[in-house]
Amino acid sequence: MLFHVHMLVDIPLDLDKTYVEELKAKEKALSQDLQRQGKWTHIWRIAGQYANISIFNVASAGELHDILLSLPLYPFMQVEVTALCQHYSSVKNEEDAH
Amino acid sequence: MLFHVHMLVDIPLDLDKTYVEELKAKEKALSQDLQRQGKWTHIWRIAGQYANISIFNVASAGELHDILLSLPLYPFMQVEVTALCQHYSSVKNEEDAH
Amino acid sequence: MLFHVHMLVDIPLDLDKTYVEELKAKEKALSQDLQRQGKWTHIWRIAGQYANISIFNVASAGELHDILLSLPLYPFMQVEVTALCQHYSSVKNEEDAH
Amino acid sequence: MLFHVHMLVDIPLDLDKTYVEELKAKEKALSQDLQRQGKWTHIWRIAGQYANISIFNVASAGELHDILLSLPLYPFMQVEVTALCQHYSSVKNEEDAH
Amino acid sequence: MLFHVHMLVDIPLDLDKTYVEELKAKEKALSQDLQRQGKWTHIWRIAGQYANISIFNVASAGELHDILLSLPLYPFMQVEVTALCQHYSSVKNEEDAH
Amino acid sequence: MLFHVHMLVDIPLDLDKTYVEELKAKEKALSQDLQRQGKWTHIWRIAGQYANISIFNVASAGELHDILLSLPLYPFMQVEVTALCQHYSSVKNEEDAH
Amino acid sequence: MLFHVHMLVDIPLDLDKTYVEELKAKEKALSQDLQRQGKWTHIWRIAGQYANISIFNVASAGELHDILLSLPLYPFMQVEVTALCQHYSSVKNEEDAH
Amino acid sequence: MLFHVHMLVDIPLDLDKTYVEELKAKEKALSQDLQRQGKWTHIWRIAGQYANISIFNVASAGELHDILLSLPLYPFMQVEVTALCQHYSSVKNEEDAH
Amino acid sequence: MLFHVHMLVDIPLDLDKTYVEELKAKEKALSQDLQRQGKWTHIWRIAGQYANISIFNVASAGELHDILLSLPLYPFMQVEVTALCQHYSSVKNEEDAH
Amino acid sequence: MLFHVHMLVDIPLDLDKTYVEELKAKEKALSQDLQRQGKWTHIWRIAGQYANISIFNVASAGELHDILLSLPLYPFMQVEVTALCQHYSSVKNEEDAH
Repeated sequence: MLFHVHMLVDIPLDLDKTYVEELKAKEKALSQDLQRQGKWTHIWRIAGQYANISIFNVASAGELHDILLSLPLYPFMQVEVTALCQHYSSVKNEEDAH
Repeated sequence: MLFHVHMLVDIPLDLDKTYVEELKAKEKALSQDLQRQGKWTHIWRIAGQYANISIFNVASAGELHDILLSLPLYPFMQVEVTALCQHYSSVKNEEDAH
Repeated sequence: MLFHVHMLVDIPLDLDKTYVEELKAKEKALSQDLQRQGKWTHIWRIAGQYANISIFNVASAGELHDILLSLPLYPFMQVEVTALCQHYSSVKNEEDAH
Repeated sequence: MLFHVHMLVDIPLDLDKTYVEELKAKEKALSQDLQRQGKWTHIWRIAGQYANISIFNVASAGELHDILLSLPLYPFMQVEVTALCQHYSSVKNEEDAH
Repeated sequence: MLFHVHMLVDIPLDLDKTYVEELKAKEKALSQDLQRQGKWTHIWRIAGQYANISIFNVASAGELHDILLSLPLYPFMQVEVTALCQHYSSVKNEEDAH
Repeated sequence: MLFHVHMLVDIPLDLDKTYVEELKAKEKALSQDLQRQGKWTHIWRIAGQYANISIFNVASAGELHDILLSLPLYPFMQVEVTALCQHYSSVKNEEDAH
Repeated sequence: MLFHVHMLVDIPLDLDKTYVEELKAKEKALSQDLQRQGKWTHIWRIAGQYANISIFNVASAGELHDILLSLPLYPFMQVEVTALCQHYSSVKNEEDAH
Repeated sequence: MLFHVHMLVDIPLDLDKTYVEELKAKEKALSQDLQRQGKWTHIWRIAGQYANISIFNVASAGELHDILLSLPLYPFMQVEVTALCQHYSSVKNEEDAH
Repeated sequence: MLFHVHMLVDIPLDLDKTYVEELKAKEKALSQDLQRQGKWTHIWRIAGQYANISIFNVASAGELHDILLSLPLYPFMQVEVTALCQHYSSVKNEEDAH
Repeated sequence: MLFHVHMLVDIPLDLDKTYVEELKAKEKALSQDLQRQGKWTHIWRIAGQYANISIFNVASAGELHDILLSLPLYPFMQVEVTALCQHYSSVKNEEDAH
């Protein structure tokens, strides 16, 4: 199952800086681990914003939900999920290749 | 340069069916040609809608504009473009690999 | 996979009445067939609107997309799809029971 | 009477964790009690969000209002209610069966 | 059951004037009949708009839906329904008195 | 003059509970006094929300403004006012009867 | 009673040009007549748009409604009405002077 | 140059009451001074809201900007500016007369 | 006076192609004439859209209005105007240099 | 690459005034440095708002992102980026001249 996820991050300005850096480091490590597993197949920064657009390739909406809620920065995110499917013009099987 | 493009297609119901099929065939051929050139790196269908989310990897916003306006179905589309850049958590260089 | 689908129907007023009745009859027959198969698990009318809220239980977003596009009234619909998953407070497995 | 209810939960990040867990446990218990009574007939998680879509089957809008305001997490919710009715394509009586 | 209904009417400018006058006359007659039955308890014009705000007092959302769809001008309306209930500050029982 | 008023109340969660109860009691008393004077002719709860829809029958927009600002809960409200007038289909004079 | 009215005019491009000019001439004449009567106290063009912002000083919302519906271009307008009242910082009585 | 300005004021509830009264008194004095100079030609209260609609007649957008930022309540305002011009139906020169 | 203008062009698909090309040629000639006069100081295409963002440097909002309404494609445009002024961080006088 | 950037600044009212002045001074110095380098080619104030519209001419969306995030006031900004390209009606090459 392919999902398009838009994550907008808004960390309160008065949060402890060291704590925020720890959260970001954990977020990056977990994100990269999920990318290497092939579950988080793309992540792009939206120019000028503390926001990303990501593609997930997971077994179900439930697995996607569990992954998103496990993200260290999730409590500071607004998340929008869009279910994707294979486009008949695509030259590749998007679930198999990225 | 990476761009996220959302295309929503709305073909008038009274348009000649044969003409529409021709447009769709040309659209598909051009899309696949651009995918093979590595300029249109992804295209996904949004579930339940006559709409797609695409990623383009082109030299400039001008090249993107020319490509989009050359699409046979462009006159029937609403298009939104978002400029993307490399995310510091990404495990790959998104401009080089897809 | 569970999906929440909002369908808003807007049939042009000048469409031939007999043709519209035929489309509605086919739509109803197909909907009921899919309900009996357990793929279209619920359909409710939104009070006062020519719109419904439906729940689908299908194998994938792709199957959902194919079903929706096969509906006779699809060309007259605006469709919004939301991916659902099991809620930890639910007393039943929503994918198995309805 | 059938109602579609969208609940979006936003618990302040600085609320005491133990208190929040107590509220969630009470919320779950009350929700399950109402589900077993047949008043809260469905609850689904929206993938990626701390939000649910629920169906209630109650005697009146007044009963729905009283139930919603009795929820321990209600003070942290944004709630939208939509009145539903039987769809002429439905194969079951939605007020009787679920 | 009390419902707040917002009706916005948009009759195409090229519709036959006589036909439109007939529809309006039928709409008025039906509206007044329903008002006298106590089902359509209030109707106000929104200043400057071809729109009204109405209050209905009916047995169910299904009855409301059937009434609204029976209105001669319904095909030209955008309708929004809001479920109301007794307010604890109200000095009268809104379902009984108007 | 008839006005439709939508009041959405949002009392901060950390406000003193006793103070809030006092405000609500004063609000109710003032509302009922204005209802008995025939100035606040209707008040309904919107199902599921801490919000009401009200009808006022006052001498002018200025009188309405003064009444609304005198409400003890006004500082916590978002208020939207819509000017109403007699509908030609109404069976009663809405300014005289309610 | 003072009202702020926003009128957005959208005349179909295929309407007969002579007919449109006649409508505009009648609209202007009626507007100027109402201005001279002191009922339509101000009219400004919004820069770049076929839209105006106007102030009306009339006896009631009903009178405003009747005036607006009598405008020759009303069938092509989207109208929004906002009820105004005297501001405590104003140096003049807005209902008396303009 | 004529400008339409919509000011929505939202003063935090926990601000010192005496300080707020001082700000309001200064705001009123400055507003009335600018009205007497003919720069702030109108100010109306929007019924039911802590908001006003104003007309300014100033030499340039820059002068308008400086005036607005000098208002004691500006830090608590959301401001929207619309550039106006003479309407061809107006019976007076709006820049000269008010 | 500096103005930011967003123009979105939507030419009906069934308009005569030759006529449209004539309109576009006239639009381009007039735009370039106004650019050379220093009144239309910038025009950029928004990537992927039949829309532009322009900067005008004119004597008044009235002059801007007259220019915009004189554009051959104006009847097919949605136009939004924003009044600009000198920014205190700017290294140049934007009204004098471009 | 040309980008249109809309920056809306919202500095919390309780932030230390001296600190804010320092941030603004640094912001101005950095902005002017980037303007002199030809990367931040225009900055205009939106009349009446603490907001600006800017044009950037940079090598890539990545460079734009890095510049925006380096701004001292970035943590207090809402930023929207729009990719621009040469308009076929423009009399100058917007990437070379400003």
